[in-house]
Amino acid sequence: MPQISIHIDFEDEGQLEPRTVALLERIAEEGSISAAGRAMKISYKHAWELVAEVNRTFEEPLVKAQTGGAAGGGSVITERGQKLIRDYRALERKALSATARHLKAMQAGAGRQH
Amino acid sequence: MPQISIHIDFEDEGQLEPRTVALLERIAEEGSISAAGRAMKISYKHAWELVAEVNRTFEEPLVKAQTGGAAGGGSVITERGQKLIRDYRALERKALSATARHLKAMQAGAGRQH
Repeated sequence: MPQISIHIDFEDEGQLEPRTVALLERIAEEGSISAAGRAMKISYKHAWELVAEVNRTFEEPLVKAQTGGAAGGGSVITERGQKLIRDYRALERKALSATARHLKAMQAGAGRQH
Repeated sequence: MPQISIHIDFEDEGQLEPRTVALLERIAEEGSISAAGRAMKISYKHAWELVAEVNRTFEEPLVKAQTGGAAGGGSVITERGQKLIRDYRALERKALSATARHLKAMQAGAGRQH
């Protein structure tokens, strides 16, 4: 089946795409950018750059450093970031279910010659 | 309002994204890759590379050269290409209408602090 992915462009702010959202979710789970990068098999540098980009392009940061505590630092997702992740996933589910039939039809069309 | 764009990944074949589909539509209108590139304000080289990529990554070419005739050449969109453009636009309309309410809500959420 063809897969669709959704990119949201916030005009005056940044963009969300599947890779970015997945990274934010991993940071929420792992509590650190480096651990999230490892889990997604991308370099720390690349993960950090993606985070710097969303933090720069959105009006409020989506990820913030957490200093001190037992873990001695790490990163957390801000409220705005958590809301954006939830909204993105809800919108994505809606788009996927609305287009499932179209995707199947496209696959059938592509498969005729196989 | 945030804007969404749809990327379709055909797994064993290539990908369609808004820019590619817009270029294919322009080629259909203009009858040439260079005129389509000019209309989209991208270089001939870039337009040609995008066409080469879809032609290479899809099982059948989506664009083909048309030799001879009054126009002395130019390019046309193949049947497969035409069908993919129609299918992409139909799927996009469906996704946009299914997510319009979510996008408005996301905008409202983002606007609270303005």
